[in-house]
Amino acid sequence: MRINGRFSDAEREAVYRAIFERRDVRRNFVPTPIPDAVMMRLLTAAHHAGSVGFMQPWDFVVIRNRATKRAVKDLFIDANTKASARYTGAKGALYRGLKLEGIEEAPINLCITCSRRRGGSSVLGRSTVRATDLYSTCCAVQNLWLAARAEGIGVGWVSILDHEKLKRVIGVPKSVTVLAYLCLGYVSKFEDQPDLEAAGWRSRIPVGELIHDESWGNRIQDKRGDGDAHHQGLYKNGGRGKNQAGRRTTGVEGQPAGRSLRHDR
Amino acid sequence: MRINGRFSDAEREAVYRAIFERRDVRRNFVPTPIPDAVMMRLLTAAHHAGSVGFMQPWDFVVIRNRATKRAVKDLFIDANTKASARYTGAKGALYRGLKLEGIEEAPINLCITCSRRRGGSSVLGRSTVRATDLYSTCCAVQNLWLAARAEGIGVGWVSILDHEKLKRVIGVPKSVTVLAYLCLGYVSKFEDQPDLEAAGWRSRIPVGELIHDESWGNRIQDKRGDGDAHHQGLYKNGGRGKNQAGRRTTGVEGQPAGRSLRHDR
Repeated sequence: MRINGRFSDAEREAVYRAIFERRDVRRNFVPTPIPDAVMMRLLTAAHHAGSVGFMQPWDFVVIRNRATKRAVKDLFIDANTKASARYTGAKGALYRGLKLEGIEEAPINLCITCSRRRGGSSVLGRSTVRATDLYSTCCAVQNLWLAARAEGIGVGWVSILDHEKLKRVIGVPKSVTVLAYLCLGYVSKFEDQPDLEAAGWRSRIPVGELIHDESWGNRIQDKRGDGDAHHQGLYKNGGRGKNQAGRRTTGVEGQPAGRSLRHDR
Repeated sequence: MRINGRFSDAEREAVYRAIFERRDVRRNFVPTPIPDAVMMRLLTAAHHAGSVGFMQPWDFVVIRNRATKRAVKDLFIDANTKASARYTGAKGALYRGLKLEGIEEAPINLCITCSRRRGGSSVLGRSTVRATDLYSTCCAVQNLWLAARAEGIGVGWVSILDHEKLKRVIGVPKSVTVLAYLCLGYVSKFEDQPDLEAAGWRSRIPVGELIHDESWGNRIQDKRGDGDAHHQGLYKNGGRGKNQAGRRTTGVEGQPAGRSLRHDR
């Protein structure tokens, strides 16, 4: 019996592989169409995220039309022109050299929304923390993102868009929140590192600096000295700990050094 | 060469298996401790979510102390007493019969936070949609949730908690947002269906009702009539489309019927 059973080592490794090889993809898209059956698998994977009160607040708008993509690309250009003005000097030059979206190159654009009124006024579990319906929808995005990696499909999340204007372009009702605008397509390759890490925009924080033992501030430092060398023998991440530009930036905001690992108490 | 390569059919199936067998777990925890190495794998999986501007805004507070769990359980009881007052009659009786957390039974409690000031005032991509740092942190939660399933570890997200009070219990600074409070432990079994579906609280919405073609309202109905029978031959979900109580509830809020599938244009 498989359901409810253990994962084999190979199955477990495949799950970690999808997690560690998933990338926010803005380039390398190839024009090969995504078959309907594959798209249904991805959307069904998204739909099987957990949701507060089993609310399933998401909807999926699947966009292939070139004119719609062009209109969304124009929204990106507007928003990015404003955003890029925040960066000057060398950082500004670096910013303007980054490729931050693949709206027109990707065969499919996908808008994932959150219908905050779904399920009526009393959604189980949401009365205490109102944003949990948005959080559930993010979990659906991540399911899709990982399933796509396993299918060889790259996914890029375009966050530099005015969502109210986007809603008018694709007809999303005022009461519905746009959560994510994604670009999907088969790719010629997945990069070893996140683009922003490779470009030297920002470094990966050692995971040990982010783990607190029992209460905030009792920070755990991984004894092995490399918090990302986590499952050696299970998986190798070729790109960890370096960026192509060889730059280092501050990881966590200035916080005190951590304590030793005390996970064995 | 494996990295950047294709997933085998078996690998892809394993990823879908984790996605479809992941459950929000509140029962069936066994006292077996989670080894440090396994915990590090889970946290590193979370840490490898994508994040807006490569911000990596998350922190992880790992809780094993019984007194802390007891204090958090008290917060749950307070919040749930208020929440349950929203339900009367049969729905109220059903609500009060649900098990909604496993705080004290789970060997590990894990609080995942979002440091919204990390990376300074100009985080790439976040100036347009301010909540994207919270969204990134949710993606980290889902990575951990799926990795845990592959490890045989159940995860339950406790959303019925006053986060400001919780921050005082575990010392989270005022400027940091609590995103998720999770209960982790090995389990004797994973349920076939979400608890709320099995209890007849709410039904799974057919995925075809949630897919819109090109613009909102052009709803796609899966031609096969069962949008969740998505990857037959790849995976079988024994529990789909039924609940143990045999009840049906309205899925999507009263929306017009959809159009035929037009994914082939």
